Amino acid sequence: MMDAVLQYLADGEPEFIDALRSFVAIPSVSTDPARAGDVRRAVEFVAARLARAGDIQVEICETARHPAVYGCWDGAPGAPTVLVYGHADVQPPDPLDQWHSPPFELTERDGRWYGRGVSDDKASMLIPILVTEAFFATGSTPPVNLRFLFEAEEEVGSPNLPVLVRERADDLAADVVVSADGAMWRPEAPCVTVSGRGLVSLEFTVKGPARDLHSGRHGGGVANPLHAAAALVASLHDGGRVAVEGFHDDVRPIDPGVLAALERLRFDEQGYLTGVGAPAFGEPGFGTLARQWYRPTLEVNGLYGGYQGPGGKTVLPRDAHVKLTCRLVPDQRPADVHAKVRAHIGRHCPEGVTVTVEEGHGGAPPYRIAPDHPALRAAAETLAEVFGVPADFVGMGGTVPVADTFRDVLGLDTVFFSFSTADEDIHAPNEFYRPERFRLGLEAWARLLVRLARGVRAL
Amino acid sequence: MMDAVLQYLADGEPEFIDALRSFVAIPSVSTDPARAGDVRRAVEFVAARLARAGDIQVEICETARHPAVYGCWDGAPGAPTVLVYGHADVQPPDPLDQWHSPPFELTERDGRWYGRGVSDDKASMLIPILVTEAFFATGSTPPVNLRFLFEAEEEVGSPNLPVLVRERADDLAADVVVSADGAMWRPEAPCVTVSGRGLVSLEFTVKGPARDLHSGRHGGGVANPLHAAAALVASLHDGGRVAVEGFHDDVRPIDPGVLAALERLRFDEQGYLTGVGAPAFGEPGFGTLARQWYRPTLEVNGLYGGYQGPGGKTVLPRDAHVKLTCRLVPDQRPADVHAKVRAHIGRHCPEGVTVTVEEGHGGAPPYRIAPDHPALRAAAETLAEVFGVPADFVGMGGTVPVADTFRDVLGLDTVFFSFSTADEDIHAPNEFYRPERFRLGLEAWARLLVRLARGVRAL
Repeated sequence: MMDAVLQYLADGEPEFIDALRSFVAIPSVSTDPARAGDVRRAVEFVAARLARAGDIQVEICETARHPAVYGCWDGAPGAPTVLVYGHADVQPPDPLDQWHSPPFELTERDGRWYGRGVSDDKASMLIPILVTEAFFATGSTPPVNLRFLFEAEEEVGSPNLPVLVRERADDLAADVVVSADGAMWRPEAPCVTVSGRGLVSLEFTVKGPARDLHSGRHGGGVANPLHAAAALVASLHDGGRVAVEGFHDDVRPIDPGVLAALERLRFDEQGYLTGVGAPAFGEPGFGTLARQWYRPTLEVNGLYGGYQGPGGKTVLPRDAHVKLTCRLVPDQRPADVHAKVRAHIGRHCPEGVTVTVEEGHGGAPPYRIAPDHPALRAAAETLAEVFGVPADFVGMGGTVPVADTFRDVLGLDTVFFSFSTADEDIHAPNEFYRPERFRLGLEAWARLLVRLARGVRAL
Repeated sequence: MMDAVLQYLADGEPEFIDALRSFVAIPSVSTDPARAGDVRRAVEFVAARLARAGDIQVEICETARHPAVYGCWDGAPGAPTVLVYGHADVQPPDPLDQWHSPPFELTERDGRWYGRGVSDDKASMLIPILVTEAFFATGSTPPVNLRFLFEAEEEVGSPNLPVLVRERADDLAADVVVSADGAMWRPEAPCVTVSGRGLVSLEFTVKGPARDLHSGRHGGGVANPLHAAAALVASLHDGGRVAVEGFHDDVRPIDPGVLAALERLRFDEQGYLTGVGAPAFGEPGFGTLARQWYRPTLEVNGLYGGYQGPGGKTVLPRDAHVKLTCRLVPDQRPADVHAKVRAHIGRHCPEGVTVTVEEGHGGAPPYRIAPDHPALRAAAETLAEVFGVPADFVGMGGTVPVADTFRDVLGLDTVFFSFSTADEDIHAPNEFYRPERFRLGLEAWARLLVRLARGVRAL
C-alpha cells in the first residue's frame, strides 16, 4: 500500500505544484477587509481540493468573519481519529517594493519557491490533503479516521476558532491533533516540538503633571514620568531574571527528558549570537536555548514618552507608556501572571506619579506535550525514517494559541508536523519554501498516518 | 525733568500703541526662512524708531543670518554706561486655528493686548526706546550713556549674538546690561531675578541586537535595550536627587540673602501644584521653589524605543534612545557636568548592551547676580516705587544664555527689567500683554535710568 501511495505522490508532483500555484495566487490576506472575497476563495479552493481527495464530508463553516473548512472521514473503524489543522489565510505582502518577484505568483528561483503564504501555511497545509487523496486514489483508504479543520483567520489571531471548535466539538472529537502549521526550527535537521511558551500582555501608563511642562521652569519640583517609568521597568528584572514577586511560583522545572534532548542538540550558539549581533545574556544558570524555550520571560516591547524628534526639547512630559509581554512556561497561568505583574507595578510605583494598567491584548497558556507521547514519538520516528537522521526535540520560544484551543475545548494534544522552516521569511518580503521539503512532507505525512494507526493516546 | 518725561510718556501713549501695532504687524518669525525679509523689516523698524528717539548713532549689523540693531549715545560724560538688550524676532504663530484674533494684528480684548510677540519681546523692548525718546523730546538728555543691542535671532537660540558681541566688544563696552527681555515671574508682584539655571544637554542610544527581534523566539536569551535604558535612567536619580557621581561637587550653597528672600515670598505652593496637576516631589530638604530655582536637576526629556502603535507587537527592539538635559547652578560648569553624566552612563551601562553618547545641543553656564549688586538694587527700588509694593527677589528655573554672553565676552552683569509676565502665553496661541504693564514699564525705565546714573558697579 505504502509503495503505491508514495508512487502516486511522486507522479503527482507537477499537478500538486500547479495546485499550489493556484492556491498562492489567491491573495487571502485575512487582515485586509478588501480581501475578504479572496479569503473566501481560498477557503473554497481548499474545500474543493479536499472534496476531490476522496469520500470526505466537506463543509464550509461560516464564522463571524472568515469561513473555515471542516472535513470528516470515518472509514477506519477501530482506528484512531486524527484532527488535521492548518490555515488558508496569509499575511499582507507589504512592503511590496522589496519583493523580487510578484508575491502572489509562485516563482521558482535558486531552488526555492517564492510567494506570500507559501511557507505560512499554504504548501504545508496542502500536504495532508494530497496525502489523503493518494490513499483514496491508490485503491486503499486512509489508515486512520480523519477530521480536517482549516481556518482562515490565523494571521489575525484566530478570533473565531475557539467559537467554532466549541460549536462543533462533537464533530471534531478525535484522539490527537496534527498541525500542518508551526514551522520546524531550522533546515539542517528535522525536529518535533515539545513546548511553546504562553503569552500575557499588558500596557501601563505613568502619569505625572496634567500637561507637558517646561523642564527648566518646573524641573526639580515635579516628578518626571519618564524617570518613574524607567524605575518601574528597572524593577521588573534583577539581572537577567524576572523580579516580579511570585512570577516563578508555578514554574515547573524543565523535564529531564527535554533537558537531555536539549543537551544532545548540535546548536551553534556562537553562530546564533553572531547572527543576531548580541552577546549571550539572560537568566543565570541556563543556556541560550533553555532561556528562549523553557524559561519564562518578561520583555518590554515598547517604552516611550516625551520628545523624540531631532535635537532637543526641554519638556517634562505629562506621561510615559510601557507595553510588555510575558512568555510563560508550565504551569504558569496567564491570568495569574497578569495579576502578579499588575500588582508589582502598583506596589513599585514611584512617588509623585500615578500608574494606570490597561488591559492586555490576547493571552495564552503555555503549550506542552510529553516527550514520550505516542503521537509525538510517531512523528519523531517518521521524521528519522524520512530524513535519515534522528529528529531533534525542541522547544518554541513563541506562542501557539491554537494548541490551547484544542487542549481546552477538545481535551486534545497537538503534534506539530509542518514542513515549513522558521527561516523562510514568513511575514516578510520574499517568503519562500523549500521544494525538497514539499516532497519529504508528502512522504512523511503518509508514513505518519500509518504509524498513528497503531495508537495515539498517551498511556 | 522726571515730571516732563513722565508727562511725555503719558501723552504719547496713543502713538506708542500705534507703533507697537506696526511692530506686531511684522511677522518676524526668525526660525522660518520664508520670513527672513520680515525679520529684516522688524530690525529696520527698530532702527528707525531708535534713530528717531534722539541723537543716537544707529547701525544695522549684519550677521550670518538675521541682522541686529546697534545704538550708541555718549552724551552723559562721567555717568555710567548702560547696555540695553532686547529682541525683535518672534516665535511661529502655529497652531493658527487656536488664535482668537489674527496673530499679527494687535487686538485689545478684555483689557489685554493679544498678538504674536507682543509679550516676547516687542512691547517690552519698545519701552526703553520710547523712554530714551522722552528724555530727548523733553529738552533733557538721558541720565546715563547708552548702548543698544537688539537682536533678531533670540527665538532660534541667538547663534550669532556671541559672534557679534565679540566683534563689537569695544563698541558695546558698558557698566551693566539691562535686559528688556526675561519676563517677571508672576503678575501679582514685581520682582527682580537673581539667578537662572545653566543648561547641559546630552543624548544616548542603548544598542542591543543588530536588528529588531521577535520577543517570543529570542526573548530571554538576548539583552533587551529597553530594560537596559530603563536601568540606566533609573540609575541617574536616587529619589528626587540626582545620583550622577560628582554631580553636586561644585554646587554652591544657596546664598543666605537669596534664601531669606525666598522665605519672604508669598508663594501659594498648593495653588501652583494644583495648577500643574502634580504633587510636590523632588530633592529632600528643599521646597518647591528652591528645587526649581536654586538646585540643579537632571531631567529626561525623551525616552523611547520599540513599538508605540495601537495594540501590541512582540518585538525585542534593537535600540532605545534617551534625551536629557541638566539645569545647573553656581558653580557647576557645563563641560564638567557633561563629562560626569557621560562617565556615569558608561560606568552604569548594563550587561549585554552597548551605549553610545551623542553630543548635546547647546549648553550654558548658570546665571547669577549678587542680590546686593547696585544695579539690581536700583531695579528693585524702582519697582517698589512704581508698583507701590516691594519687589520680590526670585530665581529662574530656565536658562538665559544672553546673560552668559555678556558676562563671558564683556565681563558685564545683566539685570532683567522686563514688563512681560511669565503667564502671558509666550510661544503659545493667544500670546498677550498687559496694557497697565506697558504704562508701568515706561515710568519704571525712566526712573531706573535716573537711579543707575548714581552708579552701577558692584563695590
